[in-house]
Amino acid sequence: MKAAVVHAPGDIRIEDRPDPQVRARTDAIVRVDLTCVCGTDLWIWRGQAPYEAGQSIGHEFVGTITDTGPDVRLRPGTRVIAPFAWSDGTCNACRRGLHTSCGNGGFWGTPGADGAQGEAVRVPYADATLVAVPDGTDTAILPALLALSDILPTAYHAVTLARVRPRDHVIIVGDGPVGLLTVQAARRAQAGRISLIGHHPERHALARHYGATDTHTDDQPVLPDMDSGSLADTAIDCVGTASSYRTCLAAVRDGGRIAMVGVPYTLRSISPEPLFNRNITFRPGVTPARTYIPRLLPHVLAGSLDPTGVFDTPVALSGLSTAYHAMATRTGVKPLINPHRT
Amino acid sequence: MKAAVVHAPGDIRIEDRPDPQVRARTDAIVRVDLTCVCGTDLWIWRGQAPYEAGQSIGHEFVGTITDTGPDVRLRPGTRVIAPFAWSDGTCNACRRGLHTSCGNGGFWGTPGADGAQGEAVRVPYADATLVAVPDGTDTAILPALLALSDILPTAYHAVTLARVRPRDHVIIVGDGPVGLLTVQAARRAQAGRISLIGHHPERHALARHYGATDTHTDDQPVLPDMDSGSLADTAIDCVGTASSYRTCLAAVRDGGRIAMVGVPYTLRSISPEPLFNRNITFRPGVTPARTYIPRLLPHVLAGSLDPTGVFDTPVALSGLSTAYHAMATRTGVKPLINPHRT
Repeated sequence: MKAAVVHAPGDIRIEDRPDPQVRARTDAIVRVDLTCVCGTDLWIWRGQAPYEAGQSIGHEFVGTITDTGPDVRLRPGTRVIAPFAWSDGTCNACRRGLHTSCGNGGFWGTPGADGAQGEAVRVPYADATLVAVPDGTDTAILPALLALSDILPTAYHAVTLARVRPRDHVIIVGDGPVGLLTVQAARRAQAGRISLIGHHPERHALARHYGATDTHTDDQPVLPDMDSGSLADTAIDCVGTASSYRTCLAAVRDGGRIAMVGVPYTLRSISPEPLFNRNITFRPGVTPARTYIPRLLPHVLAGSLDPTGVFDTPVALSGLSTAYHAMATRTGVKPLINPHRT
Repeated sequence: MKAAVVHAPGDIRIEDRPDPQVRARTDAIVRVDLTCVCGTDLWIWRGQAPYEAGQSIGHEFVGTITDTGPDVRLRPGTRVIAPFAWSDGTCNACRRGLHTSCGNGGFWGTPGADGAQGEAVRVPYADATLVAVPDGTDTAILPALLALSDILPTAYHAVTLARVRPRDHVIIVGDGPVGLLTVQAARRAQAGRISLIGHHPERHALARHYGATDTHTDDQPVLPDMDSGSLADTAIDCVGTASSYRTCLAAVRDGGRIAMVGVPYTLRSISPEPLFNRNITFRPGVTPARTYIPRLLPHVLAGSLDPTGVFDTPVALSGLSTAYHAMATRTGVKPLINPHRT
């Protein structure tokens, strides 16, 4: 099969790799129908996250089962959504809904695992990991289903971690796909004021469409206003850098919450002191997407939850490098990739 | 009046200071009937917390009002409990119950304020700050009332921050007065297993009396057991050092909570990465004691909540240095001081 291989920062190539095979009785092989590039992939592209030369990459996909081990109940031909991590579904963590902490779990696009940016993926614990799409679902909805792999659950996890309550003032830092969908999730949680802070004003119309009450290209316009007694109840860091965290800390009121769903690759440390003095709760967390997919899927299928505004036009796998460039230079928001398109 | 004055680490002297006077219409002057030494005072004693030479010290006291400004409704002669911070009672933070974040608030025993380790204290915003004790309350209960200044509310704040739920396994790190009372508070919150980790085995009988199910002198005996799938739901750091935080991080399950009520004077930074990867909530916080005192006072008066097991025999103010030594060398748990005893 063709699949993306990481050689070095900025050097991700499409190469021939062995077709994935069923190895364990609970494995399934899934043909990737649609995938995309995640902000966290960009950390590798930029050389800011660890990688191994020769590893695969990509962790978001919807696909179709082509083969299964003998213990798998899902049938070949079934369309499935893959959360960005696999998990056994039976351990204490999985039973609590925290599939990302499964001792037998792992992440696509890491050394030794297939990546989503390729033609096919071997899926361990297929019945526990994959979520089947109802038969007869219109393929036009595939991009919306793809959002269930990561960014849509992450937006809802962000709002969960931040404990957004009706009428709350929420600050969302970051106008990438997750930031934009977090606006939408905060609106559905009945937040009263939703302030988006992000560097890309061309994305702010979409943020307002999703429910942002005010948008800001940096924290200067909004923070002085908030100093006058209207600090936010809760802040959501969708970036995970020292700068975005600092903005959250400045924006949130004493006794408030800071959630973090941007991976803190470069944020090596934070000081407990201001959190302690101000009784601020810090809730960072990788999203157990598997928990959120069944809850969100009915709304996506019904069209009442539409995350597709963040996606750009699909390209073929051969266009992957262009897609990375587009995301890295912010000329695209979230490029889609159809690995079987030529 | 006589009052303790900080000269240098290890050098806290009883000296003559001007008698406190009413300065603002909302001030009261309170004669200190009973005070004590807090673990946080020891940080100054040891030179590990900032101080100004000549400042007062001590922040826990019960006393009797001797004079008031014209706007104070509390009457001279009234016995009162002072939370360890004063606050105006009217701002957004106070209305939310977060009196330690009051913009007009402050802490006893800081530069420019009277300290509790002295004969009298000027109390700003007296009606908002002080909690009156019912007339006719037996003076024998004064030590229990003194615990309401800080350590008893802090124990309940710890359990609140940690979101202790019925049947939870709670790890409490630190066997000082706050750690011991946090055991008691966790028991009242119906925790299922309460594990205390502290270096002083002579205090562990009291911990078991308060409800600890198991006690450990260091984290080695308990952590291997917990690695086998029984990690704690929530961990409470009553120390606030790198070592105690590390123990909490090792002891708590993924998806759990770490509360911190020990002041993180020396814990300059923590890494967000393990919290993110494991979805652990970090909730440090100074206690808004003023919020807890009215809730806890009826139980203390009724005798159904007895925090006095942590106190040692009262000494006179002249014995203050001995009291610091006793706490610093762990030969005492929490010495009491009666400033008017000779």
